[in-house]
Amino acid sequence: MKIFSKDEIEVLINALNFTKIEGELIPIITQDQKTNEVLMIAFANKAAIKKSLETGYMHYYSRSRQEMWKKGETSGHLQEIKEIVIDCDNDSILMKVKQIGAACHEGYYSCFYRTFHDGKFNEIRPRIFDPKDIYRK
Amino acid sequence: MKIFSKDEIEVLINALNFTKIEGELIPIITQDQKTNEVLMIAFANKAAIKKSLETGYMHYYSRSRQEMWKKGETSGHLQEIKEIVIDCDNDSILMKVKQIGAACHEGYYSCFYRTFHDGKFNEIRPRIFDPKDIYRK
Repeated sequence: MKIFSKDEIEVLINALNFTKIEGELIPIITQDQKTNEVLMIAFANKAAIKKSLETGYMHYYSRSRQEMWKKGETSGHLQEIKEIVIDCDNDSILMKVKQIGAACHEGYYSCFYRTFHDGKFNEIRPRIFDPKDIYRK
Repeated sequence: MKIFSKDEIEVLINALNFTKIEGELIPIITQDQKTNEVLMIAFANKAAIKKSLETGYMHYYSRSRQEMWKKGETSGHLQEIKEIVIDCDNDSILMKVKQIGAACHEGYYSCFYRTFHDGKFNEIRPRIFDPKDIYRK
């Protein structure tokens, strides 16, 4: 069991974005089908789930832009749906996918590339691409 | 790549609970540290994250009851925190834990115990305990 100090806790709490979540959405956990690595989490509305299942590629709903988006539309880093797993309350989906390229817009295979340890965030994954090369204006 | 029919999509969409999500919360993905199986997803507010880190055991925030809860308080099925991994936007945490007993209140090791395949939900895990034996009134 791991217990954290007051200072460590403060660091983590202050780093987190507790943005207001609103709307008829469910969280989608996207997982690499082969390795079980968690790649990302994002929200989906009904339209995004429908589009994902219709096309075989993951679509999500952006709370900031208030619109559906296709993962990899700009970068080419698409997510092919391999298996759909649903939770006990039917209010979340675990999407097992084949990730083309990398899931994270910052250039890492998974968005979860930092551990929180000894009050610091430590990168545990290599960067696969430079975002500047992918997301040109 | 997996593409679903209109009927299949309707089955899934109709099964999902798109309950309104509101408040200053972040989603927490809880993962078995050893196997990388995703056990559950739940929301946490600041107090729940603080309590988790202070005690070493997972606490979440219940949107329906509007209060913090300790995982396993009734069942004894506690989650010991082993590693904290944070995502690129700092708005979600992947908690790697040692799960005592089972994560799902329905008696399965993981809440994600059903796949959606050919328009049907299929159980892919054995039931470990009978909820009636654990959650007595």
